Amino acid sequence: MTHASLQGAGPEASSSPLYLEDFAPGQIYTAGPIPVSADAIKAYARQFDPQPFHTDEALARATFFRGLAASGWHTASLTMSLVVQALPIAGGVIGGGVDELRWPTPLRPGDELRLEGEIMEVRPSRTKPGQGLVRVRTTTLNREGQAVQTMIANLVVPRRPTENV
Amino acid sequence: MTHASLQGAGPEASSSPLYLEDFAPGQIYTAGPIPVSADAIKAYARQFDPQPFHTDEALARATFFRGLAASGWHTASLTMSLVVQALPIAGGVIGGGVDELRWPTPLRPGDELRLEGEIMEVRPSRTKPGQGLVRVRTTTLNREGQAVQTMIANLVVPRRPTENV
Repeated sequence: MTHASLQGAGPEASSSPLYLEDFAPGQIYTAGPIPVSADAIKAYARQFDPQPFHTDEALARATFFRGLAASGWHTASLTMSLVVQALPIAGGVIGGGVDELRWPTPLRPGDELRLEGEIMEVRPSRTKPGQGLVRVRTTTLNREGQAVQTMIANLVVPRRPTENV
Repeated sequence: MTHASLQGAGPEASSSPLYLEDFAPGQIYTAGPIPVSADAIKAYARQFDPQPFHTDEALARATFFRGLAASGWHTASLTMSLVVQALPIAGGVIGGGVDELRWPTPLRPGDELRLEGEIMEVRPSRTKPGQGLVRVRTTTLNREGQAVQTMIANLVVPRRPTENV
């Protein structure tokens, strides 16, 4: 398996957009770290997942999570922000569906997140000649290197226009 | 297939928490509608998915989405808020992983969302006697009844304590 690195995060990377032809199985990409505060966990949860283990440190102690933990959907949202940083795909990062999403370890306040992604498969579309699907496996890691999220997703990626080759 | 309804959304429903024994395949639950504004779409996207088709109406016109559309992860987050309303599970709604997540139609500003969920399977844990897994299929619908998200997920649900039976 080749482990060629794609360009990392940052504005300079986005100046050379990625097309389907730039992807190959085994490529690794990374982004982060980004910090995650208790305030951010609670602000997300108040909007989208208002349950005591996500909104209140004291109440959270007596719950399944034994302390404040981020909503899995907050972790997924933060992961998307890291994917957007890591992959300057031409036309943007456009999801073609998720086939697996797991939260093996709770994300805790004061932690930080980084992304490791691997390209699993690159497949031109059978019906749309201008695009294809890139299948990726992402692991979102906390400071201790534990996986707080794993995901297998498909991205819709345009083919490089022939006049630009 | 039985289509027994679970309690709908609202504080009165949360006063009778649901245990594993309360679930059965074929049960239907619903929640919503909730409105989705352009401001909400852009505010979520600025934090988690800062791409032009999610943050700027004018720039969005020339993109894949041909106009402003919500991030799929915003739709997923709003869906979680509807699941929390629909299912007053004892101890909270705790995700045991997602096996499929699709966004068949973009969510647009000014639309509204409602949730339809169906219980697919109820299974006591082989290793943890106090809990089990409930497999659900959810469809998140826009005002026109189009599916903007479909998901198959597993929830961790406690068994009813015997002293309460």
